[in-house]
Amino acid sequence: MDVTLRYATRLADGRELLYFDHRLGFDRSAPDERTDLAQAGPVSQVRWDPLFEEYTVVAGHRQLRTNLPPSDQCPLCPSRNGQHTEIPAEDYEVAVFENRFPAFSMSAAQHSGTQARGDRLSAPGTGRCEVVCFSSDHDASFAQLPLSQARTVIDAWADRTQALSAIDAISYVFCFENRGGEIGATLTHPHGQIYGYPFIPPRFARAGAAAQRHLDNTGRCLQCDQLAAELTAGERIVHQTAQWVAYVPFAARWPYEVRMMPREHVAGLPDLDDAQRDGLARMYLNVLQRFARLFDVPAPYIAAWQQAPAREFRTSWHLAAEVFTTRRASDRLKYLAGAESSAATWINDIPAETAAARLREVAP
Amino acid sequence: MDVTLRYATRLADGRELLYFDHRLGFDRSAPDERTDLAQAGPVSQVRWDPLFEEYTVVAGHRQLRTNLPPSDQCPLCPSRNGQHTEIPAEDYEVAVFENRFPAFSMSAAQHSGTQARGDRLSAPGTGRCEVVCFSSDHDASFAQLPLSQARTVIDAWADRTQALSAIDAISYVFCFENRGGEIGATLTHPHGQIYGYPFIPPRFARAGAAAQRHLDNTGRCLQCDQLAAELTAGERIVHQTAQWVAYVPFAARWPYEVRMMPREHVAGLPDLDDAQRDGLARMYLNVLQRFARLFDVPAPYIAAWQQAPAREFRTSWHLAAEVFTTRRASDRLKYLAGAESSAATWINDIPAETAAARLREVAP
Repeated sequence: MDVTLRYATRLADGRELLYFDHRLGFDRSAPDERTDLAQAGPVSQVRWDPLFEEYTVVAGHRQLRTNLPPSDQCPLCPSRNGQHTEIPAEDYEVAVFENRFPAFSMSAAQHSGTQARGDRLSAPGTGRCEVVCFSSDHDASFAQLPLSQARTVIDAWADRTQALSAIDAISYVFCFENRGGEIGATLTHPHGQIYGYPFIPPRFARAGAAAQRHLDNTGRCLQCDQLAAELTAGERIVHQTAQWVAYVPFAARWPYEVRMMPREHVAGLPDLDDAQRDGLARMYLNVLQRFARLFDVPAPYIAAWQQAPAREFRTSWHLAAEVFTTRRASDRLKYLAGAESSAATWINDIPAETAAARLREVAP
Repeated sequence: MDVTLRYATRLADGRELLYFDHRLGFDRSAPDERTDLAQAGPVSQVRWDPLFEEYTVVAGHRQLRTNLPPSDQCPLCPSRNGQHTEIPAEDYEVAVFENRFPAFSMSAAQHSGTQARGDRLSAPGTGRCEVVCFSSDHDASFAQLPLSQARTVIDAWADRTQALSAIDAISYVFCFENRGGEIGATLTHPHGQIYGYPFIPPRFARAGAAAQRHLDNTGRCLQCDQLAAELTAGERIVHQTAQWVAYVPFAARWPYEVRMMPREHVAGLPDLDDAQRDGLARMYLNVLQRFARLFDVPAPYIAAWQQAPAREFRTSWHLAAEVFTTRRASDRLKYLAGAESSAATWINDIPAETAAARLREVAP
């Protein structure tokens, strides 16, 4: 059985840094020697839109965030050759630290109070944003990680989900990766992010309510029912193993989109047992390698974990991840224009069955 | 008082074409002489996602649509010098025709039946998609149109809204413009689109429900209340006239976003009287010219009309348009990554008050 070791420390400005190691015997105690690290800037605000009943996060300081730095100034590389980065160690397996330009932070409440203006409400952007470095190798990608390293990332996600879910102010823990400049990633070093939201994001709130309603009406899990239907239909299945299934959803929104879920009904990443985590590492690498093979260059993608909220819908929720690319052909991207951005209805040029057939074809 | 003349004809493959003219005396009877025009391809399907309770439109034939053709092959220019386009006339003011690659069409039902698969439901993509050419000048933009021409476009929108709303199968008429390659426009000729949806798009359905609830609870219009609060606060107002107000919403999602609405409570574009339409032409040009002046080159933008649905929420709905750009700095775009695309919560780097101040500054 694998064991993931966890070492917690602090950066020079007080932000938390965690190392997750699969192998024993590393010294992770190197201090952050930066003396010029400015305190994190003004904090964010959550604003409620009464017309569309959704929150927007206003984070003015993020306009200043690091944008595609040259590789010798990458803040996610280990600290080597006199170059001080966000990670003081000379090497690491997986490192997690608090985002320097967070959309949410636990200190937000100290800076701005809740202001009610008429029927508008704004609140401090309380929560937590973390960066997860998947590898110390600047030029790697998740798809290329060794199996044991992918497993360490999964353990790190599970650890962070558990830790952030325990914070009263956090309602939802969202683990995701934005990969590729085409979808807006501002750093190329292989990394993902974790957002601890002070509310349940609306798309997940709707999914929770739908699952709860289905459970109340039928006594069954909505996702389990969907999965059973997909396994019977077969034509949209991309890959399946003893514990995991990857399929293209019938109503997929994106040119190539995969839904990856455990056969067993579990609520979140921390609830996966050892074998399920190993199985996930294999399944996830398999799926990402397919996205890397769809076109002549690896497809940009978003990978997003849909876990149960911290305290709501725990029984009805079934863990899943969605992995999708905005690339619809080697020379064309899917853009979110008026139909998607304003009307919130996606138009997809590639039917789910066609996408699934293509994704089966590019098996690693 | 202005009069807009309307001339209806058909293209070679049977699609409808309408000319809207502000000036008298043009002959719009030139026939479509194309003999090689293939019938519109396979039609689209609407698919229901039971997990997130939203529709996706699957439109495989759109993958083949015209993408950034050279300007001498523009299908929206008038037919001149032996070049046959979608518009047979040698010149036009405003022309509207059925989209050759529609997301929805009235013939969809003839090609595919409603199929229930378990608790999944797919339906033919019944509806109508139209293209609105704002000018015969390939290199123009809406922001540069003469006032009378802008007014003719508004009359065309109102005409099409009324005509499409009268079709039983259409639940919502959505007029919008995608402008700029950065946000995915596939043709540079100044044009917009009209979608007649077979359902109320989810974002508008939520807005309708919120407005109806507010009306039921308070006896007042939610948008009128919001507008009054914005006028009192003042700091997010961009521009106002006797009939129209443009402001940046308190919880704006986009770097620069303007909400434009009539002071009077009207449900849709057809309900605007003559003076309100003239006022709208002036206000809309003013707002678009501000977007053109935000950066060193005109900002790409999406302009989207939020009208009352064809038959629901007619009393509680208050007409508005949103105009927004994805450009957050002269060298940076706002991308929809994991937080927006998966969790559906926008993170905006530019507070509404800052955006409004900047938009006031760049007054035409």
